Amino acid sequence: MNDKINVGILGAGRIGKLHAENIVNYVREANLISIADIYVDEEKERWAKKIGVDLHNDPDKIINDTNIDAVLICSSTNTHADLIIQSARAGKHIFCEKPIDFNLEKINEALSEVDKAGVKLQVGFVRRFDHNHKKVRDVVASGELGRPHIVKITSRDPEPPSLDYVKVSGGLFMDMMIHDFDMARYLSGSEIIEVTAYGNSLIDESLNELDDVDTAVVVLKFSNGSLGVIDNSRKAVYGYDQRTEVHCEQGCVQVANDVPNLSMISKADGVFLEKPLWFFLERYNDAFVDEVKEFVDAIKNNKKTPVDGNDGFMSVKIAIAAKKSLDEGRSIKISEI
Amino acid sequence: MNDKINVGILGAGRIGKLHAENIVNYVREANLISIADIYVDEEKERWAKKIGVDLHNDPDKIINDTNIDAVLICSSTNTHADLIIQSARAGKHIFCEKPIDFNLEKINEALSEVDKAGVKLQVGFVRRFDHNHKKVRDVVASGELGRPHIVKITSRDPEPPSLDYVKVSGGLFMDMMIHDFDMARYLSGSEIIEVTAYGNSLIDESLNELDDVDTAVVVLKFSNGSLGVIDNSRKAVYGYDQRTEVHCEQGCVQVANDVPNLSMISKADGVFLEKPLWFFLERYNDAFVDEVKEFVDAIKNNKKTPVDGNDGFMSVKIAIAAKKSLDEGRSIKISEI
Amino acid sequence: MNDKINVGILGAGRIGKLHAENIVNYVREANLISIADIYVDEEKERWAKKIGVDLHNDPDKIINDTNIDAVLICSSTNTHADLIIQSARAGKHIFCEKPIDFNLEKINEALSEVDKAGVKLQVGFVRRFDHNHKKVRDVVASGELGRPHIVKITSRDPEPPSLDYVKVSGGLFMDMMIHDFDMARYLSGSEIIEVTAYGNSLIDESLNELDDVDTAVVVLKFSNGSLGVIDNSRKAVYGYDQRTEVHCEQGCVQVANDVPNLSMISKADGVFLEKPLWFFLERYNDAFVDEVKEFVDAIKNNKKTPVDGNDGFMSVKIAIAAKKSLDEGRSIKISEI
Amino acid sequence: MNDKINVGILGAGRIGKLHAENIVNYVREANLISIADIYVDEEKERWAKKIGVDLHNDPDKIINDTNIDAVLICSSTNTHADLIIQSARAGKHIFCEKPIDFNLEKINEALSEVDKAGVKLQVGFVRRFDHNHKKVRDVVASGELGRPHIVKITSRDPEPPSLDYVKVSGGLFMDMMIHDFDMARYLSGSEIIEVTAYGNSLIDESLNELDDVDTAVVVLKFSNGSLGVIDNSRKAVYGYDQRTEVHCEQGCVQVANDVPNLSMISKADGVFLEKPLWFFLERYNDAFVDEVKEFVDAIKNNKKTPVDGNDGFMSVKIAIAAKKSLDEGRSIKISEI
Repeated sequence: MNDKINVGILGAGRIGKLHAENIVNYVREANLISIADIYVDEEKERWAKKIGVDLHNDPDKIINDTNIDAVLICSSTNTHADLIIQSARAGKHIFCEKPIDFNLEKINEALSEVDKAGVKLQVGFVRRFDHNHKKVRDVVASGELGRPHIVKITSRDPEPPSLDYVKVSGGLFMDMMIHDFDMARYLSGSEIIEVTAYGNSLIDESLNELDDVDTAVVVLKFSNGSLGVIDNSRKAVYGYDQRTEVHCEQGCVQVANDVPNLSMISKADGVFLEKPLWFFLERYNDAFVDEVKEFVDAIKNNKKTPVDGNDGFMSVKIAIAAKKSLDEGRSIKISEI
Repeated sequence: MNDKINVGILGAGRIGKLHAENIVNYVREANLISIADIYVDEEKERWAKKIGVDLHNDPDKIINDTNIDAVLICSSTNTHADLIIQSARAGKHIFCEKPIDFNLEKINEALSEVDKAGVKLQVGFVRRFDHNHKKVRDVVASGELGRPHIVKITSRDPEPPSLDYVKVSGGLFMDMMIHDFDMARYLSGSEIIEVTAYGNSLIDESLNELDDVDTAVVVLKFSNGSLGVIDNSRKAVYGYDQRTEVHCEQGCVQVANDVPNLSMISKADGVFLEKPLWFFLERYNDAFVDEVKEFVDAIKNNKKTPVDGNDGFMSVKIAIAAKKSLDEGRSIKISEI
Repeated sequence: MNDKINVGILGAGRIGKLHAENIVNYVREANLISIADIYVDEEKERWAKKIGVDLHNDPDKIINDTNIDAVLICSSTNTHADLIIQSARAGKHIFCEKPIDFNLEKINEALSEVDKAGVKLQVGFVRRFDHNHKKVRDVVASGELGRPHIVKITSRDPEPPSLDYVKVSGGLFMDMMIHDFDMARYLSGSEIIEVTAYGNSLIDESLNELDDVDTAVVVLKFSNGSLGVIDNSRKAVYGYDQRTEVHCEQGCVQVANDVPNLSMISKADGVFLEKPLWFFLERYNDAFVDEVKEFVDAIKNNKKTPVDGNDGFMSVKIAIAAKKSLDEGRSIKISEI
Repeated sequence: MNDKINVGILGAGRIGKLHAENIVNYVREANLISIADIYVDEEKERWAKKIGVDLHNDPDKIINDTNIDAVLICSSTNTHADLIIQSARAGKHIFCEKPIDFNLEKINEALSEVDKAGVKLQVGFVRRFDHNHKKVRDVVASGELGRPHIVKITSRDPEPPSLDYVKVSGGLFMDMMIHDFDMARYLSGSEIIEVTAYGNSLIDESLNELDDVDTAVVVLKFSNGSLGVIDNSRKAVYGYDQRTEVHCEQGCVQVANDVPNLSMISKADGVFLEKPLWFFLERYNDAFVDEVKEFVDAIKNNKKTPVDGNDGFMSVKIAIAAKKSLDEGRSIKISEI
């Protein structure tokens, strides 16, 4: 028991709760000590009681608790960088949800504190832990298909977020496609050096006033000469559409969407398959557990975390470039940012 | 905490350990109090320590423990009926692995003790809890496809068991196809009234000396007039092949095998999909958890168990009929048994 | 041009017309000289004119035409044997639709005339020429999967035939499952030695009065020790369901149904695939051309025909055995027939 | 017979021969009168004799033959525009292989002669006649999925052409992606207004010297606000990869590659599907017949041809824009060209 990692969670929103429940139920090597959320209400208290975890409204209490080895930062994006800095200074290992911040300098500042403190940092790019995308990466990385030529990523949400969310999320490139930028780097094993973004508000025109889009296609140049493309839509009525494909010198690897079951129903009016799992909570259910398990494992066994600060930094940089490309109507070199 | 169900496990073989780990990790509504196995060795002790459970060699201690609400009988088949009787008399709810016994009278005796005691009994037909087969059943039961006409079940193991196992298992019809007999009843919602069995030893001829077969095809008549077929093989080199299909008046529902991921790799020498999950531990991983959850739920909320004593009884009866059909080279009415 | 095979067709029903059009349009190595049908009406005359072929009502004129090398017998089953005998005596090569006859003696008589005359005979088991089933056969025959263990054939029509048709067709085993008996022999490369048939009238109870069934499952024993199963239904509302599968020592080969296109449409109410091609004219479109091409090729190059008299004979023998099994409620050895 | 269309073919290269054989064998409503090729050799003469068609080396003889209603221009691209002009002036209906020309003015000149002469013109974008892509178009055009948002086209050849071919073909955008530009317009039912092209020579670096690429990803803006992406590779070792997908407001439609048969072989070392049909001759076999049938039908019944001069013009315009985008490293509005 003594060699379990003691963990605190900062933020009891949807994602904070998810990690909390996963740790309690599935991450045997970690103890969840407590959760802090600046807004504690009855509902949260009931929830905390149910899973048997201490909940309070003071992040500092967690950051300063010498009994706690690591924190999961699940609060709103604007608090991430500061909490990273404080946690690093307190010697905590850090798991931080994406994006680290919208501002590259602030990210750099946070990362340098992490470096200085010598603590582990992992960024929450959960899709890297999905069995399907992981397989694509593994096949590419194994070299059995030779050099990658074309990386294709489809990523569509089942329904658009509220306009209130979009106002603070940083927009499609920062809150949604950022996952795909990370996926592109992960699958290809190469850095993105240029992007061109095309986007439009086809689902909800009121996004135009928020300077955002709901549909986007972005082409990518990688440093190894290969090319990529990402397509995003805020609304796939049939459910979360998350497919990846890498075409290589000696073949192509691609993955389909996970479904609740593999049934095929043949009727007079057609042959029906199940729709994809509804959204990220369903689709990446196991991946959310696995990312935390690997974080805990990295701490326990002093390994590199599987998604590091640079991964967090680069994804934001590319998102900024993509938005700039859309705004200026031209291709943007990542080195311009 | 008080309203959790306290559980003891009888038998710490492969399946006993599986249930133990599942209860500890995934069945929140149950406490695993202790495990008894008449052969306790160092390996088992290490395992019990690791998952933090009390292990000893005295089944009676569990059966007589007034603190324990329910037992899971995971010992060898020849002990099942007696343990059911003892547990029922001690007022325990009972989860028993299949088959209950090879002898129908002994099963009846056990079931009547269960009845007398008024405890719950669930038999371990785990496949009923698989997301794929469950979907087939749900579609048929919903009536959206009308009356079932043909039930088809394919069930092939990745590799044959040892001859030592076959000697005590009751043979293919009793240790393997028994699952499919239950599945046939479950999918069609109707009773089997006649079987004809064809079988042969095509994988290992030495089975002939054990009066067993490794390959079998059995046709079924159901009381509702529909027909069925089961095919079994002890050796599918590509992995566990578990597919079901029901053809109905207004359409057909079928399910494919689960795979580790949905990748498709296209190369010069062909297009590759993943092989099915290797064996029952992989394929029915979640189903093993769900059957125990439903057992616990039936106790807590005083519901009928989803697989009852009659289900256990009927599957053995049909298995006996199938073997008789093979031996005598003729169709056997279930009512003959 | 001189080395084309001159062909006459006996019978201008649906299948006679089909072969006629195929020869005119796709079988370059054959000339269709004329067609005889004892009932010539205006519709048939219009059709014959459209495809530019001579139509009359005198089969003898074709059989005795010294300019004609081969005949295709597409008339009603009760005329097959006599037409084979007459054609053989006239030295014509013969393509005959299945079944040759319902009576084994009559078939033997016809076959011995064919032998005596030294002409080619091919029976119209068109499914052997389907790209999918052929692939299954080729894989099994290649030996790459080792010895076959289980042969599975699903064969379901989109809609039942008229009761008038059933009255003269010989019933399900003779007009429908006969194709599957041939397929079973073709796929396994082994003879069927025993059958057990289960059947019922689930779609239309009035079949009971005709001593026929509309749903049937038949198990097979092959001389090489392997086992088989065929399931038939007269009504698959989703279209013609024709799948085959052979499970072997070293793996399994199976084929799916052909569809009009490979589209997948994902909508809020489900994911839709195309239904199978509607019926045999659509599904075996190319196979109908290929069987005649191979017949012509066998004549031109003096090869064995790909489906010979014995194949025609055996399929009827097995169909008789299956009906007897159903009638007598027991397994029937083919040697009993 | 009198109302058949008399056809002549200009050019007896691979594609000219293909059309010739298709007309002879499958296009009942057309007579192939003769074929002209400026290089007639023995091999071509043997071929012409075999299919029974007159072959000579004088295109003018065909263009001036008053008995001929229509010509198929299958000669090298640099002759297309002139042959169109001559044929139009001679009152012939014209089927012309793509591209009409590399030069937009020359295309305009040819099209205005066609207009003046009032003859039909069809351009050989054969993929519009493929059952799969056609289904995608039909679903989008039906409106059942609402407004299109994202059009995705994958188009990869099994092997790169010779460098000699590339030197005269106009390069990847003009000889290969031109099909996809047409497909994009066809599927979306909207005009392309801007392109950004990324490309590289990843398969054969010597292409760099020819100012061409072998791998390219192009993003598209459509006038209706939707977005598109095309990816091209000269080398898919697993065969011709031709997939299309349109994501719409109310769902998504996509198609898979055609295969020689729908077999699945499960073995110890994996589950194997067939590779896609090898190349365009195999994949678009039926589509080549259908495009000529529709051309002949348009003439006979005085309909609009399904692919007209403007379609031919636009595809070249977009190809020029894509090449310019690649060369100048910026997005190009089609209106710039």
